[in-house]
Amino acid sequence: MPQFPAFDVMTATCPSRTSLARIANKWTAMVVIALSAGPMRFRDLRTGVDGISAKVLTETLRDLERDGIVTRHVYAEVPPRVEYELTALGRTLYAPLQALGLWAEEHFPEVLAARESYDARQRP
Amino acid sequence: MPQFPAFDVMTATCPSRTSLARIANKWTAMVVIALSAGPMRFRDLRTGVDGISAKVLTETLRDLERDGIVTRHVYAEVPPRVEYELTALGRTLYAPLQALGLWAEEHFPEVLAARESYDARQRP
Repeated sequence: MPQFPAFDVMTATCPSRTSLARIANKWTAMVVIALSAGPMRFRDLRTGVDGISAKVLTETLRDLERDGIVTRHVYAEVPPRVEYELTALGRTLYAPLQALGLWAEEHFPEVLAARESYDARQRP
Repeated sequence: MPQFPAFDVMTATCPSRTSLARIANKWTAMVVIALSAGPMRFRDLRTGVDGISAKVLTETLRDLERDGIVTRHVYAEVPPRVEYELTALGRTLYAPLQALGLWAEEHFPEVLAARESYDARQRP
């Protein structure tokens, strides 16, 4: 049996970096966090991920479906109902992405103080 | 005492989303992972984060310095030596960002299989 290849995101030519680029993304983080509550329709996702444009949500969902993180299910109803859901693989992403969201919320006062201090130092 | 404000990255107008955008980024992830080994000079970071352009590394370091995640220290030598280092705040980012990097490496075979299956379904 061939040995399993070792992937290394720190190497420019390693294909796993394309996966890191997909998941280390604010929209991916917010869509995965929203879908962790269960299957959702497009319009509900747009409410859950407040401020996302229809275009960006469409592209994000398509990219996540392509990477096996989200499934798209079309129900044969009139009008057709389309729902998006995290796959088993996608659910393994919830913990690390939720950790990033919590970090941004919990540490924002420190980040803001750092920004104000940095900007003050840049003034002539 | 005023109550501590609650930040929520899922709300479009919440300023903490600007922090999520900064940290949920592949270059941020790779720079923080590289700097977790200790202080580094610019050229060593360019080696550590294989493939990053000087322009993108400069911008990433400046943004991370502004957000209080990285410090830039100039040593009064000839020629001046400049080192970048994670702050205490920046070190708290290592675990969640390293988790994303590991996810991309460990799950890449599944992601690749999903991509091949998706692309095959799109063919006419």
